[in-house]
Amino acid sequence: MRPTFEILTTDGAARTGRLLTTHGAVETPAFMPVGTYGSVKAMAPEELEGLGAQIVLANTFHLMLRPGADIVHAHQGLHGFMHWQRPILTDSGGFQVFSLRSLRKITEEGVRFRSPIDGSEVRLTPEDSMDVQLKLRSDIAMALDDCTPYPATEAEARASMERSMRWAARSHEHYYGRTTDGGPGEPPGGLFGIVQGGMHHALRLASLESLMGRDWPGLAVGGLAVGESEEERIGVLEALVPHMPADRPRYLMGVGRPEDIIEAVLRGVDLFDCVIPTRHARNGHLFTSTGVINIRNSAHQADVGPLDPACGCYTCRNYSRSYLRHLDRCNEILGSRLNTLHNLHFYLELMRSIRAAIAAGRLAAFARDYLRKRQGSVDAVA
Amino acid sequence: MRPTFEILTTDGAARTGRLLTTHGAVETPAFMPVGTYGSVKAMAPEELEGLGAQIVLANTFHLMLRPGADIVHAHQGLHGFMHWQRPILTDSGGFQVFSLRSLRKITEEGVRFRSPIDGSEVRLTPEDSMDVQLKLRSDIAMALDDCTPYPATEAEARASMERSMRWAARSHEHYYGRTTDGGPGEPPGGLFGIVQGGMHHALRLASLESLMGRDWPGLAVGGLAVGESEEERIGVLEALVPHMPADRPRYLMGVGRPEDIIEAVLRGVDLFDCVIPTRHARNGHLFTSTGVINIRNSAHQADVGPLDPACGCYTCRNYSRSYLRHLDRCNEILGSRLNTLHNLHFYLELMRSIRAAIAAGRLAAFARDYLRKRQGSVDAVA
Repeated sequence: MRPTFEILTTDGAARTGRLLTTHGAVETPAFMPVGTYGSVKAMAPEELEGLGAQIVLANTFHLMLRPGADIVHAHQGLHGFMHWQRPILTDSGGFQVFSLRSLRKITEEGVRFRSPIDGSEVRLTPEDSMDVQLKLRSDIAMALDDCTPYPATEAEARASMERSMRWAARSHEHYYGRTTDGGPGEPPGGLFGIVQGGMHHALRLASLESLMGRDWPGLAVGGLAVGESEEERIGVLEALVPHMPADRPRYLMGVGRPEDIIEAVLRGVDLFDCVIPTRHARNGHLFTSTGVINIRNSAHQADVGPLDPACGCYTCRNYSRSYLRHLDRCNEILGSRLNTLHNLHFYLELMRSIRAAIAAGRLAAFARDYLRKRQGSVDAVA
Repeated sequence: MRPTFEILTTDGAARTGRLLTTHGAVETPAFMPVGTYGSVKAMAPEELEGLGAQIVLANTFHLMLRPGADIVHAHQGLHGFMHWQRPILTDSGGFQVFSLRSLRKITEEGVRFRSPIDGSEVRLTPEDSMDVQLKLRSDIAMALDDCTPYPATEAEARASMERSMRWAARSHEHYYGRTTDGGPGEPPGGLFGIVQGGMHHALRLASLESLMGRDWPGLAVGGLAVGESEEERIGVLEALVPHMPADRPRYLMGVGRPEDIIEAVLRGVDLFDCVIPTRHARNGHLFTSTGVINIRNSAHQADVGPLDPACGCYTCRNYSRSYLRHLDRCNEILGSRLNTLHNLHFYLELMRSIRAAIAAGRLAAFARDYLRKRQGSVDAVA
């Protein structure tokens, strides 16, 4: 089914909502843990459910290379493949291909690149990306976009944005009216469009206007979290988001830190994904109520207390900082598990608090409190 | 408390029993998953409990180097440190020190070696090993032994065994009458003696006789799984085990493959530990009802069926061979988790079947059936 969206409450520009997909509802604002290869690193699906994860993101680029879309399709899609029965969003592969830089060639048709796995040449057109995402059977698919590098001149950003808009139209044409096996019929989910335009506000608005010629069940802001300053990112959001249709979910791709998420929610964004909680966890950077802790710090060596006394997660209830540091030093897999579980709990708990604050009409106060508390950080790492 | 042992049923030389420790009972014959650094690799304690693990083994050598016995002691011992409330057996550190070969020097006092972590010189005497194990607060501690290399002449094996016996006496002297903080009182568990003597049956019997001068709540067979043939190992067991006291648990250290365990149980052994199920899992070698499978084999690439249709574990109920192969190829932590969970389930289920077969008086038939079924192995890897 095509996802639907309902706004429940508003608080300034922020809102709580319910995004309904083939595999169930997502209460927004929501954070999507990243499951690059069809696994949110170190986590089992039941653990994600226990943490309150409502939806995960998987990467089309990685999955088309390994194991390939046909193998996932043979499992009735990603839900069967990875044993996750809640909603899944897949990206288009664009962002990763553009990150390859020297290994790729962009034409109007699409992108050709060398596979980082085996060096073979791979083609990714808007139609290819749709075919892969249809086979993955995601609840939400993303249009293929040309991700504008940072920095970019106005002319570069315009050319890149205009290509993205032509690819968005081709993505839309190809996705709708097609089933998971490429035959005619209803697709398994819905396709979101992506606004590009770099740091240039006028281009962002032109991109949005171009997209509005078609029916998208949601719109994303792409091309951020690519190296710009916080001020530039917030500037783009403030120029763009008020013009995005209020009745559809707004997804800020690849952002970010807890404070970035709060700033974006304050400006009307509903959906987020980022590798920070999971990747930081594996590097020993752990989010707590008083800031980010580096568990590798020798200060934690003999600390028998929990990581965060204010946290109710499995890790904090059952293990000491000393044990977490020990597991990290010994490269024990359980260390990655316990750290990831804690960081995801932190993010998902943050989203629950944000939703509650919006519903109570006190998001601004919540945001102020949150940012103030983090100034007590002991190990400045993030 | 000092562990006690009760025999429940016998079937030839094999027996089922109940080993009672400070942290609860262990139904024997039992397999102990290995938690080298205070974590059974890739597993959480609740998963081990769910699999039916009754007792785990932890390594004194590794834990004394990282994080150090005092830090574990500050957590009220290993149980608190690793969040495992069932029985724990610690080895003495001897086996690992002797594996260092060129980096160690043996004297009558004990062993001095270079730490593989930081190169510093470390001393391990029988008294040191007991002090560490007391601080770890294990339910079962092991005497420090000189692990005879393989092969060894009769003279070499005799000298090594006789040193082990003097160290066993010193271990016993030091352990009993001492609490976890080194003060006078009751130790937290009991100390097992270790029979040495290499492949020389007369030396094995002399070692056993020497040990019998003291009261041990259990006895171990050490110095096997060091490179000897299966025939040599079974030869030692057949010469030695019938003379070991029937009313105390017999522990075959570091052995081994499922078929090795069955052969030893048939000869009266009660306790086992081995890294095979966990290490093999991380290398993609998975035990099934029809033999060992190498999940990296391309034959499994598109196989949407379970690893073992006859297996009821979490992995086999929820994931395909194709997905397991994919996770392994992508070095996903979840792959190590699912594989480890499956292999440990296989071992622990094997032990349940062995206990049931003994209780039913049909262990010999069970052993024949088991070994015959494994001839259908598809990927010969183990």
